[in-house]
Amino acid sequence: MFNKTLKQKIMERTKIKIGLFGFGCVGKGLYDVLHQTPGLKAEIVKICVKDRAKKRSIPDEFFTFDRSEVLNHPDINIIVELIDDSEAAFEIVSTALKSGKGVVSANKKMIAEHFDELLALQKLHNAPLLYEAASCASIPIIRNLEEYYDNDLLQNLSGIVNGSTNYILTKIFRDNLNFADSLKMAQELGFAESNPALDVEGFDAKFKLTILLAHAFGIVARPENLINLGIQKIGDLESRFAREKAYKIKLIARAQKVGNKIAAFVMPQFVSRENNFYHINDEYNAVQTECFFADKQLFTGKGAGSHPTASAVLSDLSALTYDYRYEYKKLQQNAGYELTRDFKVEVFVRFSDEVNVPAVDFDEISERYSSQKQNYVIGKIHFETLINSDWYKNPAVSVVLAENPIV
Amino acid sequence: MFNKTLKQKIMERTKIKIGLFGFGCVGKGLYDVLHQTPGLKAEIVKICVKDRAKKRSIPDEFFTFDRSEVLNHPDINIIVELIDDSEAAFEIVSTALKSGKGVVSANKKMIAEHFDELLALQKLHNAPLLYEAASCASIPIIRNLEEYYDNDLLQNLSGIVNGSTNYILTKIFRDNLNFADSLKMAQELGFAESNPALDVEGFDAKFKLTILLAHAFGIVARPENLINLGIQKIGDLESRFAREKAYKIKLIARAQKVGNKIAAFVMPQFVSRENNFYHINDEYNAVQTECFFADKQLFTGKGAGSHPTASAVLSDLSALTYDYRYEYKKLQQNAGYELTRDFKVEVFVRFSDEVNVPAVDFDEISERYSSQKQNYVIGKIHFETLINSDWYKNPAVSVVLAENPIV
Repeated sequence: MFNKTLKQKIMERTKIKIGLFGFGCVGKGLYDVLHQTPGLKAEIVKICVKDRAKKRSIPDEFFTFDRSEVLNHPDINIIVELIDDSEAAFEIVSTALKSGKGVVSANKKMIAEHFDELLALQKLHNAPLLYEAASCASIPIIRNLEEYYDNDLLQNLSGIVNGSTNYILTKIFRDNLNFADSLKMAQELGFAESNPALDVEGFDAKFKLTILLAHAFGIVARPENLINLGIQKIGDLESRFAREKAYKIKLIARAQKVGNKIAAFVMPQFVSRENNFYHINDEYNAVQTECFFADKQLFTGKGAGSHPTASAVLSDLSALTYDYRYEYKKLQQNAGYELTRDFKVEVFVRFSDEVNVPAVDFDEISERYSSQKQNYVIGKIHFETLINSDWYKNPAVSVVLAENPIV
Repeated sequence: MFNKTLKQKIMERTKIKIGLFGFGCVGKGLYDVLHQTPGLKAEIVKICVKDRAKKRSIPDEFFTFDRSEVLNHPDINIIVELIDDSEAAFEIVSTALKSGKGVVSANKKMIAEHFDELLALQKLHNAPLLYEAASCASIPIIRNLEEYYDNDLLQNLSGIVNGSTNYILTKIFRDNLNFADSLKMAQELGFAESNPALDVEGFDAKFKLTILLAHAFGIVARPENLINLGIQKIGDLESRFAREKAYKIKLIARAQKVGNKIAAFVMPQFVSRENNFYHINDEYNAVQTECFFADKQLFTGKGAGSHPTASAVLSDLSALTYDYRYEYKKLQQNAGYELTRDFKVEVFVRFSDEVNVPAVDFDEISERYSSQKQNYVIGKIHFETLINSDWYKNPAVSVVLAENPIV
């Protein structure tokens, strides 16, 4: 009888004893959240930190500088990993899985880069690893992909998955600030990663896309095989172009069916007022699913910040007490999707006079503009041609996708 | 090993044999969806319909007019109930549960009115009943409330949960049509229920709220104990007031913590451009959760129409093959929430001269307006006073809540 089992599980919920790695803003957030969630009887037993000099806001006896003191602590049954260093994080998480402990991690880089190994470890040691906080913080997108979009109707997954770039783009396109000031504000508010290039150049979004690809389409991709173009090259001409058309530019991670293959990349694109993403501002994230029959669905929530991330960690902790684990249904279903670069995109390419953007690279050019300083061309181009071109990576060239990029 | 079990489950997925009740627009939608979802090897074996005269779009041998032929069919393992008549639906669903079959239903009225009995039947016969389509069609809100918001951090759940009233309000406030034309268009598009009063007077939204209350806060309420005010009395003066302030009026279902109790009702309210619901138009639905720490999250999708509803039914069918069932976690956790009417709301009350809306009923009045035809008053009023007043139900009185109604 399911109710009896559930009641037993709830009884067992008194037993969550957490070993925490990292006490940065998310770690502190988790500490706050746990202290205000009496329903989930969870307790942080020990916290492993690196910096011996740092003053801590909670008593010293919580802390250790020795990993093994947490990993081998007899009372601890769940490890929560919230550190920055992705290689150290992988060591911690794999050690914990090997000892059969449940693990919650928010480390998108670590998970994206070690997806295959983490899958194997979970299977071999029958130990669950949850990481909802690693993709869009408080938005339960991984679980929905696993449990609700568990069929072959999903056509397109796209999202604003990086809070700090969305904050910066909001400052630029809604509040008319410049890039540098906007970045500084994002960092001051704690939305930007410690290394801003991870955000601004689209790497953080790509790590999240890597994770989403596995749960959406059963593809385990190496992050280095996915194209990420950030927002660092967005300049005046394309910003002016966007404003004149009442567009905004948003950084979108996308995984879209093209025939029976999947196009996946992170790139800036124009969005009009009719586009759901137009209205997603500041540090908010949003993920849109498009399915046969169900049409577009949008999940919106805070994608950065200590408390939203901590609340996703909390939901994972709670799920562990109900024996929830990702079943990686799409991987099991083995629909055989592969990544492809064999499709065309519609692009806006801004370039200065010293760069040659040859018309012959394009299948079709719909607009050209030249001025004394800057030029742009709008056209359709094969994706492979674009990313392998000589000009694509030139600092004086900025590429922004059209609103419906895959044509 | 979880993967082995999962693979077994996937093998067993070949075995979905559906007995379908009802072949209206959702039933036909399900038929379409199943024919384009080869991954879910599900097949409709038999369809029970009422109307012997109606021409059908699929072969006659699918149909029967005898319930028992479907309910007792030896090959059928899942019953999908998609009929209009809620009492007949309850008989069908309870008979199916008693024989241990899995059941999927989209019938919000039936589920809301028989929640307690359906809980008991599921428990007694260890048979699962899923009904994601019964609340907001394609939006997976019930599952998210069950699985993700399974803790005591949820503060407020509010939503546009009725597609046809939202369609009508969009026509009025975005497209400047009148009520009657807008209703007609909604009916022609198939968004409105066969009995428009169910939609327009807020009953459909209330049935959904009843279901959401159980999964959000563990409260099993009788629908008749929840207040629903529809959109049928919205007139020119409050529409003009909304337009002048750049507001829209939306019909919002709400379940909100007030202290340690829950305020729950369906009522029209003003929303400004900054409000997430302002941007939810046409037949779209949206549900907003507000949690400590995670802040606002919004789930948006099509809430009406044959294919969105059918796709939710499909997801439930798929979930049944993975042995998913609602665990009614909030009911099990037994946090002891109760409904309350002991709170104040801020309201806009429009009334004609022949009605007496006494100032003494209000705790505070912030605005008064009188003209030759119509008057309005804006103020704070105790909820119990409002709904028990002589004037509240008068056809010449229209009540619209303020943007943040509970004060």
